[in-house]
Amino acid sequence: MTDDERLARMHLSAALEPGDPLVSHAVDAVSARDVVDALVGGYPRMDPDGRRGRRLASVDPLRVREDAARNGLTFVVPGDDQWPPGLSGLADRVRDRRGGSPFGLWVRGYLDPAALGRSVAVVGSRAATSYGTTVATDWCAQLAEAGVVTVSGAAYGIDAAAHRGSLAADGYTVAVLACGLDQAYPRGNAALIDRIAQGGAVVSEVAAGATVNRGRFLSRNRVIAALASATVVVEAGVRSGALSTARWALDLLRPVGMVPGPVTSASSVGPHQMLREHPTVLVSRPDDVIELVGELVTEAAVLPAGPDRATDGLGADASLMHESLPPRAPVTVAELMAATGLGVSAALRALGELAAAGLAHGDGDTWQRARASPRRPPA
Amino acid sequence: MTDDERLARMHLSAALEPGDPLVSHAVDAVSARDVVDALVGGYPRMDPDGRRGRRLASVDPLRVREDAARNGLTFVVPGDDQWPPGLSGLADRVRDRRGGSPFGLWVRGYLDPAALGRSVAVVGSRAATSYGTTVATDWCAQLAEAGVVTVSGAAYGIDAAAHRGSLAADGYTVAVLACGLDQAYPRGNAALIDRIAQGGAVVSEVAAGATVNRGRFLSRNRVIAALASATVVVEAGVRSGALSTARWALDLLRPVGMVPGPVTSASSVGPHQMLREHPTVLVSRPDDVIELVGELVTEAAVLPAGPDRATDGLGADASLMHESLPPRAPVTVAELMAATGLGVSAALRALGELAAAGLAHGDGDTWQRARASPRRPPA
Repeated sequence: MTDDERLARMHLSAALEPGDPLVSHAVDAVSARDVVDALVGGYPRMDPDGRRGRRLASVDPLRVREDAARNGLTFVVPGDDQWPPGLSGLADRVRDRRGGSPFGLWVRGYLDPAALGRSVAVVGSRAATSYGTTVATDWCAQLAEAGVVTVSGAAYGIDAAAHRGSLAADGYTVAVLACGLDQAYPRGNAALIDRIAQGGAVVSEVAAGATVNRGRFLSRNRVIAALASATVVVEAGVRSGALSTARWALDLLRPVGMVPGPVTSASSVGPHQMLREHPTVLVSRPDDVIELVGELVTEAAVLPAGPDRATDGLGADASLMHESLPPRAPVTVAELMAATGLGVSAALRALGELAAAGLAHGDGDTWQRARASPRRPPA
Repeated sequence: MTDDERLARMHLSAALEPGDPLVSHAVDAVSARDVVDALVGGYPRMDPDGRRGRRLASVDPLRVREDAARNGLTFVVPGDDQWPPGLSGLADRVRDRRGGSPFGLWVRGYLDPAALGRSVAVVGSRAATSYGTTVATDWCAQLAEAGVVTVSGAAYGIDAAAHRGSLAADGYTVAVLACGLDQAYPRGNAALIDRIAQGGAVVSEVAAGATVNRGRFLSRNRVIAALASATVVVEAGVRSGALSTARWALDLLRPVGMVPGPVTSASSVGPHQMLREHPTVLVSRPDDVIELVGELVTEAAVLPAGPDRATDGLGADASLMHESLPPRAPVTVAELMAATGLGVSAALRALGELAAAGLAHGDGDTWQRARASPRRPPA
């Protein structure tokens, strides 16, 4: 990516709200430079009230770059070594009018895409019980010992417990914040966030200077789900943001685990409800999480070097799934599970692999085979 | 049933171990009288070592009847008003070389088949935690208020808590014992067992005088599962007998619910494992259990008065399921769930309804449509 294109992405990140699918799709379709120029010049179709254009005009991208350098922040964009492949799944996903790939990620520390290939988002309530924080800490320590990375949001409660468990076992852990990385949110976890940045990474879609707000929290949740191979909710009330992270993970076809708890605890109502109503898996020990994590199949992994058949290089489950997908009539995940004999998490991983390879597409409820291989030139 | 046939069944119940599928099937195929006479006269094919014949010869059935009358016990057999239709599901089920219909049920109190049409077996560990006993007591009280009968085994721990909760709300509750009803097992629950007999029923397959043993406990579990519309496990270690009751309920195609608990509790390992590995439903409140219970569809209910089409009188789900069943190739429950769009418990209820009507048969893993309606004369 050219320096100018990178600067244009910084500019968008600093001036616009994250998770805006309209702008994100336009950047994917043309370039960040074209989108910035169009919006600053006035582009009513994408910016009817001119607010986006005015915001961009009011921000000096060179100053954003200088501020970031002074704060010791890296800006990672698609194509960079540090760019996590898992984020590409966000390009065509919209949920509650929010979605799209981030323009880039601001990073404190080092973002290791290879490590994220075996990672789990461990999220949950701020108002966690001692049961929940004990489980989060113990499990993330054991996961770290097994080489599984913890991704979370550095919030009070379950998030902090998850990061602490991973750090206690010298694990690599990644925190995704909803504010600019010149700040720590919540303030009370500033020391924890510093420790995470030392051995792992603290990342955000929004540039230095931006404070948290509701929209940024919701957009942040999709980044947590997209960075990790799987998502596990430890405790969550019925309205917990952790459930929005879990729903993003389901949309992204990543395996989702739920930790049960006492039925008498309000903090376990969310996991229990998800287990009853969504294709999620009960996890009762760290080994269950490791099974869930498996290997994140990235686009890179499913694109073999030679111009062979589109399905070459697929894993066994994905090949089986591809054969079971009808070319026209869409079918449900339950039907595909029955046809392939795969369990929920294996079926979702296989569909994710096919989607990443452009061999299948679905809307979250139903799936079908893609008409032709869109990414492979004919042999 | 003739008095002599009833006496022959008492004789079998008093002399032989319960849950012997060989003898039970023979009784179903011919009559109890024929089986008793054959065994007493020596019938090597069914009794190679002559043990069954000697046991029968050593028991005087008239004395069994007198003892029962003195103890205030009723003997209920198929065809009696008190005979619970749910037991008929046991006729063709064998699990771990155990199974078959009971020869009859000894009853203290009054066994109400109509009440059992809306019932749940609530079972669990003897070594229950205060969490488990609280859930069992509270839920069974709320279920009793909603008109749902509790069936259990009167054991220490979860069983006793379930009966107590039902009694506290003046509910009808049924205890199934593994010993003769002249005794109370466990002794420490003798007062509880007396209270259950007053307003509900205490039942057993084995005649007065028989003490508990391992085989009788295991056979008893199948009766608990068969009496109830659904089974719920509150707490169970990995080797708990409550899980054998749950497996019997699955074999009988009854919905099975599991109460989750802390992953740190050994008493919740059983329910969590069942939720991961078997088609069971997480239940987190009494309403979930009521949903699971639905209506037990008995043979009587699916046999309309007139000689109409075999599928007349089926519920909507069962009709849908019948249409989805292939006539020849057996299919899995997962495939049928996908084809019908029904959830686990609704699908199992529908299959149970079809099986009771003789319209489908399966071996627990796979199902297919029965060749012709076996129970309905042509119009």
